[in-house]
Amino acid sequence: MSRLEKFGHGGDLLTASALFNVEPEQLLDFSANINPLGPPEGVLEAIENAKNNIVHYPDPAHRKFLCALARKYAVPEEMLLVGNGAAECMALVLLALAPTAVGVIYPSFVEYTQLAQQYGAEVIGCVGREETGFLPVEEELGLLLDKVDILFIGHPNNPTGLMYSHETLSRLAVQAQEKDAYLVVDEAFIDFLPEENQPTLLKHLASYPHAILLRSLTKFYAIPGLRLGFAAAHPDVIARMKGKQVPWSVNCFALAAGEACCAAGEYEAATRRLIADERVYLHSRLSKDLRFRVWPGQANFLLIRLPEGQTAEAVQDGLGRRGIMIRNCAMYPGLTARDFRIAVRSREENNRLLRALAEMMGESIEERKKT
Amino acid sequence: MSRLEKFGHGGDLLTASALFNVEPEQLLDFSANINPLGPPEGVLEAIENAKNNIVHYPDPAHRKFLCALARKYAVPEEMLLVGNGAAECMALVLLALAPTAVGVIYPSFVEYTQLAQQYGAEVIGCVGREETGFLPVEEELGLLLDKVDILFIGHPNNPTGLMYSHETLSRLAVQAQEKDAYLVVDEAFIDFLPEENQPTLLKHLASYPHAILLRSLTKFYAIPGLRLGFAAAHPDVIARMKGKQVPWSVNCFALAAGEACCAAGEYEAATRRLIADERVYLHSRLSKDLRFRVWPGQANFLLIRLPEGQTAEAVQDGLGRRGIMIRNCAMYPGLTARDFRIAVRSREENNRLLRALAEMMGESIEERKKT
Repeated sequence: MSRLEKFGHGGDLLTASALFNVEPEQLLDFSANINPLGPPEGVLEAIENAKNNIVHYPDPAHRKFLCALARKYAVPEEMLLVGNGAAECMALVLLALAPTAVGVIYPSFVEYTQLAQQYGAEVIGCVGREETGFLPVEEELGLLLDKVDILFIGHPNNPTGLMYSHETLSRLAVQAQEKDAYLVVDEAFIDFLPEENQPTLLKHLASYPHAILLRSLTKFYAIPGLRLGFAAAHPDVIARMKGKQVPWSVNCFALAAGEACCAAGEYEAATRRLIADERVYLHSRLSKDLRFRVWPGQANFLLIRLPEGQTAEAVQDGLGRRGIMIRNCAMYPGLTARDFRIAVRSREENNRLLRALAEMMGESIEERKKT
Repeated sequence: MSRLEKFGHGGDLLTASALFNVEPEQLLDFSANINPLGPPEGVLEAIENAKNNIVHYPDPAHRKFLCALARKYAVPEEMLLVGNGAAECMALVLLALAPTAVGVIYPSFVEYTQLAQQYGAEVIGCVGREETGFLPVEEELGLLLDKVDILFIGHPNNPTGLMYSHETLSRLAVQAQEKDAYLVVDEAFIDFLPEENQPTLLKHLASYPHAILLRSLTKFYAIPGLRLGFAAAHPDVIARMKGKQVPWSVNCFALAAGEACCAAGEYEAATRRLIADERVYLHSRLSKDLRFRVWPGQANFLLIRLPEGQTAEAVQDGLGRRGIMIRNCAMYPGLTARDFRIAVRSREENNRLLRALAEMMGESIEERKKT
């Protein structure tokens, strides 16, 4: 575990502040994948209006937000579960289905492994080839699914940003049902893709009773501090998950913000345009100017490999001293000490990162010449 | 399950609003036991200041709040766990210790039973005698503890408001250790008692490695919408509980509010004075003027039995139509259809409740005369 990710994740401002001697407010965070536009205006208003609600329990049934979600996605309420972040939804899947073995495709979000082990399941992993962005071919996925009770798929996958086709997901969901296993598709970052380019099973869940989709509102709507996510699945699966949920786990500000997020259509379009443009820009500058290897991720982050002789930890330290946080990926199974991940942010912020990297790379070339 | 408590608890404004045709903001809530003073001023400021933090993940280690808690209660940080409400702490106890059998003393907070069953434990109950406020004698408690892996004790107990002595708790904690069981003391309401009158094991946990204390900040500091609680126990127990916790389960507003609560000394004193005075007032008016049976609870709520021929449900309905919510206790094992619970609120609010009750009792006496 690296020093900055001592709690296992990016976005840890307090640790970064202590490590790099920079005030938390001064840090520019490329280590967590949060919408650089900040929350939609309606969310800030909703929080203001919800202030008086803190003296009351949150609605235990999340009625208003659930209704807004059901309308937005045209999915029946009984197929939706609201959670205290997608992380709670993930935990509820594991608690409800109590799998003996869980399949994980490395490299991927550490919580698939972490939570599965924490609730007593054995984790069976597989790693794809670098050339395909570590996405295994469908046959390998099928073989892995054969061995487990739950297969977790990141979609887009974190930290690679790569996707599967609708057909692959559909075939896996059918295979899961045939062997009484479950396919859990973590779509925490799928909102960042153009809507016509989101190969999700969300509208087709009636045909896939063994597929469970997890969604997060914290990344796309920039509210990770509030915690809000949801799961979509067959009503029987949702009922089993609810049977493991702790009462009032979703706070009143998250519920109010969630309702506002469901009405933020223009913000959504603006976000998708920004992320698409800036991802292309970052990809090009990082690969052409800095000669880093950059995987062709589809989400609001990019996985990057440094040239031989460099380490992600050293680059993380150098950037940290300049007030910029990145996610060291050395500890991801399947990745190397040269790999790191950055969020896609605004042009100005991206340029600040690029300048700092260029400066450090110049330095490090200088240093190598000296030795 | 009554119509108002359809999700198992008091404080459900949305259901009450629909049932009684009163706007949620217009409802006066005696059904949830929340400090009538509202949150301390520092909490509202902290929330204002934390608004900018919603774009960042909450601190996964809760460092600042944990430090403030450890200082306030003079308990080492490694003996404390911060949770998304006391309810999460309760769930983590069950997930960490995976009991086969859980002991519950009825009537008590429904989640001891609910969560224990939800995580697969058998629940073994015992009920004390009405005359002693349903508190079993120590021998009965010892016999129950003999049969279970975890014994839950509400302290003060909800809905009775009654307490055990320090000696009883201490002997049970020793007995628990001898048989490798755990004593879980839910002190969600203990802050409402004068500090010199809180028979808690908190300062003595080093001597009781099989005692686990649960605390809530949501009742005393009037922030149930935010969700915040903590557990105190031996470091090994805390470590096992942390091993089951979902990352970032405590949101940024709760953490900021928690820090502010730790610095609200004057507010604490004012609350304890108000609750002590108003509880005596309510007790006297309810028992003397209205001739209800009132148990001598020590917390910020009172358990009340209506005269023969009346039902809590009818009184709840009548008060509901007048915009006042109370907690029907008919569904608590050990209680009857004539039992209900009210929170202790401000003099003005208490008088509004008393007037409404007097009016209804007059009516119901009239009605009985007619039939």
